[in-house]
Amino acid sequence: MTNVEGYLKKAAKLVDETIEELLPPASMHPSSVHTAMRYSMFAGGKRVRPCLIMAAHEACGGEFGDRNIALASAAVEMLHTFSLVHDDLPCMDDDDFRRGKPTAHKAFSEALAVLEGDALCIYAFEVLARTGRIAVITELAQALGTGGMIGGQVVDIESEGRGVDFKTVEYIHENKTAAFIRACVRVGGMLAGAPTSTLNSLTAYGNHVGLAFQVIDDILDEEGTTEQLGKDAGSDREKGKATFPAVFGLDESKKYAQELIDAACRDVAFLGVRGDILTALADYIRTRIS
Amino acid sequence: MTNVEGYLKKAAKLVDETIEELLPPASMHPSSVHTAMRYSMFAGGKRVRPCLIMAAHEACGGEFGDRNIALASAAVEMLHTFSLVHDDLPCMDDDDFRRGKPTAHKAFSEALAVLEGDALCIYAFEVLARTGRIAVITELAQALGTGGMIGGQVVDIESEGRGVDFKTVEYIHENKTAAFIRACVRVGGMLAGAPTSTLNSLTAYGNHVGLAFQVIDDILDEEGTTEQLGKDAGSDREKGKATFPAVFGLDESKKYAQELIDAACRDVAFLGVRGDILTALADYIRTRIS
Repeated sequence: MTNVEGYLKKAAKLVDETIEELLPPASMHPSSVHTAMRYSMFAGGKRVRPCLIMAAHEACGGEFGDRNIALASAAVEMLHTFSLVHDDLPCMDDDDFRRGKPTAHKAFSEALAVLEGDALCIYAFEVLARTGRIAVITELAQALGTGGMIGGQVVDIESEGRGVDFKTVEYIHENKTAAFIRACVRVGGMLAGAPTSTLNSLTAYGNHVGLAFQVIDDILDEEGTTEQLGKDAGSDREKGKATFPAVFGLDESKKYAQELIDAACRDVAFLGVRGDILTALADYIRTRIS
Repeated sequence: MTNVEGYLKKAAKLVDETIEELLPPASMHPSSVHTAMRYSMFAGGKRVRPCLIMAAHEACGGEFGDRNIALASAAVEMLHTFSLVHDDLPCMDDDDFRRGKPTAHKAFSEALAVLEGDALCIYAFEVLARTGRIAVITELAQALGTGGMIGGQVVDIESEGRGVDFKTVEYIHENKTAAFIRACVRVGGMLAGAPTSTLNSLTAYGNHVGLAFQVIDDILDEEGTTEQLGKDAGSDREKGKATFPAVFGLDESKKYAQELIDAACRDVAFLGVRGDILTALADYIRTRIS
């Protein structure tokens, strides 16, 4: 039985140390933007994406603590944070709290939130370049662009309050969330030198885990309290967001999430004990709703 | 005598064709963001940065039309446009017109302008990755981050209406404008395989041209009409922007711009006839105020 909490803690410690080392000190001119970058990067993220990179890397024979993996993990957390800071802006989701803390535009200003997000995005690519691996840069840029995360975000914003259908929800989940998570898992495998057949299985795993992650997030938004979530509960429904529970209801959504997690576990079963941590991570995501 | 207008036209044609080829069609889902990206990319930019990349590349023995140079040129124009789209946002410079056309957030929406800018930034790195050159990605990411363009933009926004001093204006010019232009010139040299000594001279040239470009932009904002500029004339002074004319007046600013252009020409004199187009481009920038 893999100790997933222990692994999450170990992975989060490594990525936090790497982010701390990489980010310019808050005192460096212009200090406002460096302060904001550090504020958002250390606002209590769960480091799920770095954890998936590291787990995929180890499952493919890589060693924990590898420098390129630490760099890639820090970079994806910067990219994730960039997307959250911009998503929270008044002209987008207009959220005042995230993880129980004021969002960047509330803690600082809208202008600084835009620029801080831009800076995190740009710096992430600089950090990725330090791995010396062009394929990793391509993989993440494709997952984040209009054929992935940004595309999903555009449709998410545009679908608000317009009634929801399954096709739209599926597009948003696959692009806004799953594409990025899938890319993280693949990057872990790529940096361990995994063969194409293994990368294909990791792709399937990442997709199933990514979709499950978003469905569960939608369920928690319906069921959780504001205190549990660290942000306004029920805000998806209030905004008329295109979510899985909005289309199929909570029971069906939970069943679907379970199926996705089961599928993810099957995707990496061929790895045997080496894939234990990937299976455990998928199961861990499941426990958020059980 | 180099025909600089002809060169600018030839370079702009190549970069426009490359951008056209690279950008997803407006009809591709989600079409709103692809439409917005194309709108901003083809809103009449002068393609100064691509032109400088191409000219530096040729000055170092590279061939016009080289695929990597076309890709890098298209990518820097995407990065430049991303910065303009975000700069124009209501929470930033709040500009309604640029180059005589409504800015992205006026033509579409604030949310789409944020996302379109993000998408252009991300896609630019994907395009840069196609050159296979890590050093080019590093060079541009460093020039655009908080130690360059974003840093300059942060100080620019924060200095508005606070009185201006030379140190602040110098910081803004060097970081907001010159760092990016310098990097473009260097990328052209790097992709032609220029030796370090040549790259050092190109760095000096890029810095002088970049500073001159911004000083002249500030002069034009004071002297030009709204019709000539395609945006509100005098808006810098109205907003209390930290500009060179605001500190030293127009006459001193014009003298300084001339000195910078002269210095840029000296920086590339050692290249002989091969550097003619770089000299001609510097002189061309000078003609904007003479």
